[in-house]
Amino acid sequence: MPSTAKVREKKCAEREMLISDMENLLGYPDDHPEDQEIIMTSPQEIVSRFKSRQEGWSVERVVSAYRLSKADGKIRAACAAHRKTNCLTEVLFTEALDEARQKDKELASGVQPDGPFWGLPSSFKDTFNIAGVDTSLGCSMHTSQPSTLDDELGLVKLYRQGGGIPFCKTNVPQTLLAFECCNPIFGRTTNPHASDRTCGGSSGGEAVMVVLRGTPLGWGNDTGGSVRIPAAYSGCCGLKPVRGRLPFRGTRRSVKGFEGIKTMHGPIARNVTDLIYQTRSITQLALAFPSSGEDLIPLPWTEPNLPKKLKIGYMIEDGCVKTSPACARAVNVCVERLRAAGHEVVIFHPPPSERSCQCFVALTSAERYSQLLSNVGSDELEESMKLVVLGSKMPGWVQWAAQWFVRHILKDEIFGGAFAVSRGKSVPEYWEWTYRRDMYAQQFREAAWDVGQFDALICPVMATPALKHGKTKFLSPLAIWCILFNIVEATVGTLPVTRVDPSLDVHPSDFLKDSTGSWILEKRVYTGPDAAYDASAMAGLPVGVQVVGKMWKEEKVLGIMSLLEGLVGYQ
Amino acid sequence: MPSTAKVREKKCAEREMLISDMENLLGYPDDHPEDQEIIMTSPQEIVSRFKSRQEGWSVERVVSAYRLSKADGKIRAACAAHRKTNCLTEVLFTEALDEARQKDKELASGVQPDGPFWGLPSSFKDTFNIAGVDTSLGCSMHTSQPSTLDDELGLVKLYRQGGGIPFCKTNVPQTLLAFECCNPIFGRTTNPHASDRTCGGSSGGEAVMVVLRGTPLGWGNDTGGSVRIPAAYSGCCGLKPVRGRLPFRGTRRSVKGFEGIKTMHGPIARNVTDLIYQTRSITQLALAFPSSGEDLIPLPWTEPNLPKKLKIGYMIEDGCVKTSPACARAVNVCVERLRAAGHEVVIFHPPPSERSCQCFVALTSAERYSQLLSNVGSDELEESMKLVVLGSKMPGWVQWAAQWFVRHILKDEIFGGAFAVSRGKSVPEYWEWTYRRDMYAQQFREAAWDVGQFDALICPVMATPALKHGKTKFLSPLAIWCILFNIVEATVGTLPVTRVDPSLDVHPSDFLKDSTGSWILEKRVYTGPDAAYDASAMAGLPVGVQVVGKMWKEEKVLGIMSLLEGLVGYQ
Repeated sequence: MPSTAKVREKKCAEREMLISDMENLLGYPDDHPEDQEIIMTSPQEIVSRFKSRQEGWSVERVVSAYRLSKADGKIRAACAAHRKTNCLTEVLFTEALDEARQKDKELASGVQPDGPFWGLPSSFKDTFNIAGVDTSLGCSMHTSQPSTLDDELGLVKLYRQGGGIPFCKTNVPQTLLAFECCNPIFGRTTNPHASDRTCGGSSGGEAVMVVLRGTPLGWGNDTGGSVRIPAAYSGCCGLKPVRGRLPFRGTRRSVKGFEGIKTMHGPIARNVTDLIYQTRSITQLALAFPSSGEDLIPLPWTEPNLPKKLKIGYMIEDGCVKTSPACARAVNVCVERLRAAGHEVVIFHPPPSERSCQCFVALTSAERYSQLLSNVGSDELEESMKLVVLGSKMPGWVQWAAQWFVRHILKDEIFGGAFAVSRGKSVPEYWEWTYRRDMYAQQFREAAWDVGQFDALICPVMATPALKHGKTKFLSPLAIWCILFNIVEATVGTLPVTRVDPSLDVHPSDFLKDSTGSWILEKRVYTGPDAAYDASAMAGLPVGVQVVGKMWKEEKVLGIMSLLEGLVGYQ
Repeated sequence: MPSTAKVREKKCAEREMLISDMENLLGYPDDHPEDQEIIMTSPQEIVSRFKSRQEGWSVERVVSAYRLSKADGKIRAACAAHRKTNCLTEVLFTEALDEARQKDKELASGVQPDGPFWGLPSSFKDTFNIAGVDTSLGCSMHTSQPSTLDDELGLVKLYRQGGGIPFCKTNVPQTLLAFECCNPIFGRTTNPHASDRTCGGSSGGEAVMVVLRGTPLGWGNDTGGSVRIPAAYSGCCGLKPVRGRLPFRGTRRSVKGFEGIKTMHGPIARNVTDLIYQTRSITQLALAFPSSGEDLIPLPWTEPNLPKKLKIGYMIEDGCVKTSPACARAVNVCVERLRAAGHEVVIFHPPPSERSCQCFVALTSAERYSQLLSNVGSDELEESMKLVVLGSKMPGWVQWAAQWFVRHILKDEIFGGAFAVSRGKSVPEYWEWTYRRDMYAQQFREAAWDVGQFDALICPVMATPALKHGKTKFLSPLAIWCILFNIVEATVGTLPVTRVDPSLDVHPSDFLKDSTGSWILEKRVYTGPDAAYDASAMAGLPVGVQVVGKMWKEEKVLGIMSLLEGLVGYQ
């Protein structure tokens, strides 16, 4: 087994060669100002131009545009995005260009383009298998094992069946279980708005590519916020559906056989219009081309028929970590605009969300992350994962003493409570936590959909906007706003609403005065010179919200996101 | 805590009083020959007579007919069924009669009856909560805890919302994990065709009631054959849907938090026409009246559009226990009739089904049945459960030695292989089995739906027809034909096809000559004076088949069952 350094060197050199070869071959965007038009055109519009055979629109030109740009920050295409943020892992430019030329030939020979993604290049998160390249999850041991065409299943296969051209894969955290997008093989991907900040994870590379217009569409997956956190950190839209309507095969998972929390693939796009096009298209393709070995719900896409007056519930505080002024303001902006538009918007109090967080920690830690960590092998463990796996790696009595100390001496029941359940478990304990998960989800649904009768809920994606690199190490519990809906198995989307504005979003010195959250976490987030939240330093960072609906209600959630997007006018 | 004997005495005395009081109050069916007309009328026809206000059809009369008959085996109604087979547990006759009179008043006052079950009485398996009575699972500790109206959720609530009148509950095996319907509280329910044989389980009481026309409809649930085995043993139809379209709340489960195998409720009816009416009605009600705290798939009922020429796969041997001539003949009858009707019918070879059986045993035994057995408390453990829980109750080394002995000395790899995995497990082992389950299911689906392109599969329900009481003790692995589809999560129905005919179904003395199945099991089933299968002794017993389709394809599976029912003409 070659060392991590050797693997990194090999993989990064390959990547660099593929990118720079292409730059040399095809020139730079400065020589092609016409690229700008392509980059700014929506995915559905690009496909429609192919279909209507609009003059000057060849697949090769579109694919090239998405690959040919240098890091000038203006023409935001794939290479530019990578030069700026280090977001690419596997590069399939040559294959994509061949495919583009092939498609142009078909077009020239009179073939009528078919499929919602016809001729459209797209990146994919580096968990999806694409023939010819690795799916490494940022781990040495999964390199030099290129996927075959047989491994290319699920969304990638559907994307091709819909006429699309996968053209690169994007970076993820080591083993996926973190919301910093960094690993020992491909390194660290940075936030498109601030290089000292993380783009979030685990679908971090996809969100960056979408925001920097490096790809028309992005494809991620989400177990505890992995679509939503990067979308919110980088300023784009994402959807976490629940299992059933989209195929799930064709990815590498870091843990096999774990069904305590259900991972689901989700689309990522620049705006809700694109996200709807993408979700509708892939859902319709999934019905048209059944995934081998998977039974999907035969539920056709139905355009939503929203009531004129929506009833929306909103949440601002999760009770664990006080929500920053910027993130609270994002929710309040939505509340105000929705009310002004005549909708009923009332506060919603869910069952205590720390219970959902405990279920998540208890279930994911049940086998001490042994399978997850087996992916790491001899690679160095990323800092961002260390708190997550800490409790379950301690000897039982040390872990017990530590959580006791946190709860009873440090008097932080919320942090201590989560830490207490982060440990290895017996099967009866594991089933007990599965049951608690179900009971929490049931109570949440009763409160939201039956008692509340809400059409959707709106809440923060996280207590803060994008954190600095390295900051997530002790702040992984901040994912609680996302985890909540993995536990509840809700259909959730995220969209950007505003940007951090120091004139509105600085937190006062007595900000935590009445908070009943975890003081250990809140101290790190809000106090001292090294506070994670700093409105001045965060100026201009995007701030998103989550829009939450019932299971299998993608159409309705997207419909409400679209309405909200129109009301908030994010730029 | 009162002793088992005290609890049994109390519960059985209550039951007897409620039944005989009603017999005394309302007289016997011999005095009411007009009951016969009601008993022979289909559920949908009864409802339609109420709705059209047909003269002489009052709800009270219908409810009474279903309760008023003695055990003469001719007028088959609830009490008669009970007197013959001991199938009732909880009796709600008085409440049902009050409800019937109330409904008749509404009818008289000009209210238009609404709902597909309007005025129709029905029994429910004693796992469903009904207000005012226990849900005991045949366990002392769950008696004297009557459900409240708040506990009445899921199917029972929907049934009432559809106008129906739950009027009794029916017997189950202790803790549900057996296919003999016997427990220390309510005793043993017998097969409607042979009192020395079991009616199967765990929804045994429901199947008996349906077959003896004690109830127009039955409602069971199925984790490893619990709808299908009793339906086949007693000679009626049942459907095991997969999770998602019907609510799941409102039942007592013997194991909480276990999702390795997913239990699902299922309808039971006398014939496929009734089963379709019942399934369609309850599915449409589930969409109209959302179950609190549960998100159901918003998939409307769609009448199936079957291709003119179906492609059907059939299986006769599971590779574990050779299928008896009677049960093989049932499948062959279907094959012949389908072919004669112009359909394509070819043999289907699934991935080895003993792998699915191993997954089932490995997953259900993972915590040594500790939660399941905690329901038993101080009650005596039923014989039918002893083999099931044996392996996991042995000290590790004894269990290891025993399975080694079976595999290597007794040379029975199939039986030994299942026994070997029946033991307590760590969480990593448990996840490993979850993964194996998913891989098996995936391979099965690929083979059946993608490679085979079958519209449905047909196979036995079990290797034999109904066994004698006590025989299931060492033959629990016979449930493999059913378990297979719990592992694969298929939509499966069962319908009776023929009856055992000694002139066709006696097995020759060299029957096992070429079998590669488990010789330990096959010996018990086919050899010696005490053989479980005996065509002469079984003469006249019903023999069913399973019809298997994709997940969420209730309409198609029922459509093919209906077609098959017409072709085989079971009487």
